[in-house]
Amino acid sequence: MEPDDVRSYLDSFSHRDWQESDEEEGPVRFAMVGLGWWTRDEAMPAVEESTFCETTVVVSGSAEKAEEVVNEHETVEAGLTYEEFQDGEASDAYDAVYVCTPNAKHLEHVEAAAERGKAVLCEKPMEASVERSEAIVEACREGDATAMVAYRMHTEPTIRRARELVRAGAIGEPVHVHGDMSQGIVGWGADQWRLDPELAGYGTSVMDLGIYSINTTRFVLDRDPVAAQSTMHSDHEYFSEVPDEVAAFTVALEDDVYATCTASQNAHMSSHLRITGSEGTILIEPAFHGESDLELTVGNTTVEVDTPGVDQMEEEFDYFADCLLAGREPEGMPEHGLVDMRTLAAVYESAESGERVEI
Amino acid sequence: MEPDDVRSYLDSFSHRDWQESDEEEGPVRFAMVGLGWWTRDEAMPAVEESTFCETTVVVSGSAEKAEEVVNEHETVEAGLTYEEFQDGEASDAYDAVYVCTPNAKHLEHVEAAAERGKAVLCEKPMEASVERSEAIVEACREGDATAMVAYRMHTEPTIRRARELVRAGAIGEPVHVHGDMSQGIVGWGADQWRLDPELAGYGTSVMDLGIYSINTTRFVLDRDPVAAQSTMHSDHEYFSEVPDEVAAFTVALEDDVYATCTASQNAHMSSHLRITGSEGTILIEPAFHGESDLELTVGNTTVEVDTPGVDQMEEEFDYFADCLLAGREPEGMPEHGLVDMRTLAAVYESAESGERVEI
Repeated sequence: MEPDDVRSYLDSFSHRDWQESDEEEGPVRFAMVGLGWWTRDEAMPAVEESTFCETTVVVSGSAEKAEEVVNEHETVEAGLTYEEFQDGEASDAYDAVYVCTPNAKHLEHVEAAAERGKAVLCEKPMEASVERSEAIVEACREGDATAMVAYRMHTEPTIRRARELVRAGAIGEPVHVHGDMSQGIVGWGADQWRLDPELAGYGTSVMDLGIYSINTTRFVLDRDPVAAQSTMHSDHEYFSEVPDEVAAFTVALEDDVYATCTASQNAHMSSHLRITGSEGTILIEPAFHGESDLELTVGNTTVEVDTPGVDQMEEEFDYFADCLLAGREPEGMPEHGLVDMRTLAAVYESAESGERVEI
Repeated sequence: MEPDDVRSYLDSFSHRDWQESDEEEGPVRFAMVGLGWWTRDEAMPAVEESTFCETTVVVSGSAEKAEEVVNEHETVEAGLTYEEFQDGEASDAYDAVYVCTPNAKHLEHVEAAAERGKAVLCEKPMEASVERSEAIVEACREGDATAMVAYRMHTEPTIRRARELVRAGAIGEPVHVHGDMSQGIVGWGADQWRLDPELAGYGTSVMDLGIYSINTTRFVLDRDPVAAQSTMHSDHEYFSEVPDEVAAFTVALEDDVYATCTASQNAHMSSHLRITGSEGTILIEPAFHGESDLELTVGNTTVEVDTPGVDQMEEEFDYFADCLLAGREPEGMPEHGLVDMRTLAAVYESAESGERVEI
C-alpha cells in the first residue's frame, strides 16, 4: 500500500462496496412482521434512514400495537394482525417482508409472503429447527421469492475488510478462530420467548448468539462447517427449559480450520472474533453488538482501526433492497442459512451426546 | 480504591507478594539438568540475576557441552554427563535440580535427585504420560523432596493480579474462558524432540503450549478440570508423528465454567487468556510468551495495564528458592501438575474418540 492509499483504505470502512443501484431507485416497500423492540427500535429507524427502503405495512399479533405503530410513522399505510397478513390483506402495499417474530413463527410468515412472490428478509436463526428451515428454503424456491437471512455482519464494513484481508493472504493461511458473543438477558425478566424452546428452538445462547460466531467465521474465511463438538449447561431458574445458559463449542471448518466459541445469555456483554493465521492475526472487538473494530497484527506490527461505525440494520436493509433492484441474488440466501441451522443442530446434539457430530 | 491506592496498585505489578525470606538468605545452589537453549538462554541468565539462587552444577548428554558451559560461568563448579549425575557425582555441590530435558527424560533425573533428598524444579509438562508423572509424584514423596513443576505464570505479577481480581469478585462469577498459545516451530527444523512422541509424549501443541491455557485458568479461577473435548489435526510433514499441529479443546472446570482453547506449533506467535464473568471481563494479552499485559472491563469501563514486565524465570526460581528457604510448600507441586497431565491425556483421548472425556 502506498501512503496515498491509506486514506482510501480508511474510507473503505464506511463505503458500500456492494452497491449497484442508483440512489434514486426504489424504494422497496417493506411489511414489518413482528413488532417487538428490535423491529421498532432498530429496524424501522434504520429503514427510515435508508436509501432504498420504506416501511409501508406493519404486522403484529396485537391490532392495537399495529395501529399504534401506524400512527407513529408517516410512511406506514396499513397495520395488520398476523391473520390479516396471512389472508393477503394490503398485499399490494409492500414488495418485501421483514420477518422478526420468535424463531418458531418465521415459517408461516415466510410461506405467506413467498406464495405471493414477495421478497423475504428473515431474521436469524432462520427457524426453530433444521426441518422448519428446510421448509423455508422450499417455500422460497416454490414462490420464486428472493430471500435472505438477516445476517447483519455480511454488510458490516469491518467484517468485509476482514474477509478481504483473509482472501488477500494478509495473515497467511487461517489456522484457528476464537469467537464469543455474550450478554445478560436475566434483567429482561422470566417471560421471554428466547427462554421458551417452543418458540426459540433447540436452545437460547447458541441459537441467538453463537450463530454470530459461526456465520461470521464462515463469511470471513469462505469455509463451511464440517463437524461440531460442544458442552453446555443451565443453572439459573430462568434457563430451566433451555440447555444453554452458557455454551462452549468448537466448529471444524473445511481445511481443518477450527473455530472455538462461547455464547451466554447470562454473562457480561462482550463479543469478539479472533482469526489466527500462519503469519498474523485479525482481532475484531467489539464484534457483534452493533459496532465492530478491527486490529490486524502481521509479524510484530499491529494496526488498530477504530471506526465510528455504520447503522448495521440500515446497511443490511439497503443491501437486500439493492439486490432486489439490481436483480441479483443476495449472499445470505436460505440455502446459506440452512448450513448454520445444521451446525446449530450439531452443536446441541453434541452437547447432549458428548460426541463429535458431523455436519 | 482511593486515588492514593492507584499508585500502590500499579507498584504491585512488579512486587513479590509471595516473598518471605530476607535477601541475604541463600543461595540455593542449583544443578541445571539439560543444557538446551531454554536452560542456557533463559534459565541460567535468570538465576544469575536472581536473589536466592546460584547455578553450581550443569548436566548434559554431552561432556563437551557441559564443559563449555562450566567455562562460561564463574559460579559453576562442575559439568556432568547424565550418567555422572545419575551416579551422584558432585552431589554435595547442589541443593536443588532444575530438570529441563525432553519431557520423557524428566522422570529419571527427578528420581535421581529425589533419592538424594534434593529439591526438584521440573519443567512442564511434568513428563510424557500420566503414568510417568505419577512416578514423579511417588519419587518426590519417597525422597521427601520439595518439588515444583515450573509453571512460570504462577509468579507472573499480572497473572497474580488477575487471580486477585477474580477472587475479589471484580468480574462477578466466572462464566467462560478463552485461551490460546500458538507459535511457529517449523523454522527450527525437522529434528526437534517436540515433534517426536517418544520424547514429547501424547503430542506437541497441547503438551507444550495448551498446558499454559489449562494451568493458568486453573490458577486464576481456583477451579480444577472435570472434563475435556477436543479436535486436532496434523498436515505439515514435520508433524507426521504427532496428532496436533493445531488443536482446539474445551475444558469444563468445576462450577461449569468452560475454558475453550487453541494451541498450534505452526501458526503466528500469539497468546491470550480472556475470562468473562457475569459482570466483567479480564483479558491478558500477550499472555504466555514472556510478558503479560492486563485489561479489565467492568460494565462500560476498561482499564489497561501495560507493564514493563519481570523476568518470569527469575521470579520462578526465586519463588521456589524462597519456599525452600522458608520451609513451605510451593503451589505447583507434582500433585498439582498431575491434574494437568490427566487433563492433557483427556484432551488427546477426546480428539481420538470424538467423545467428551471425564477427568
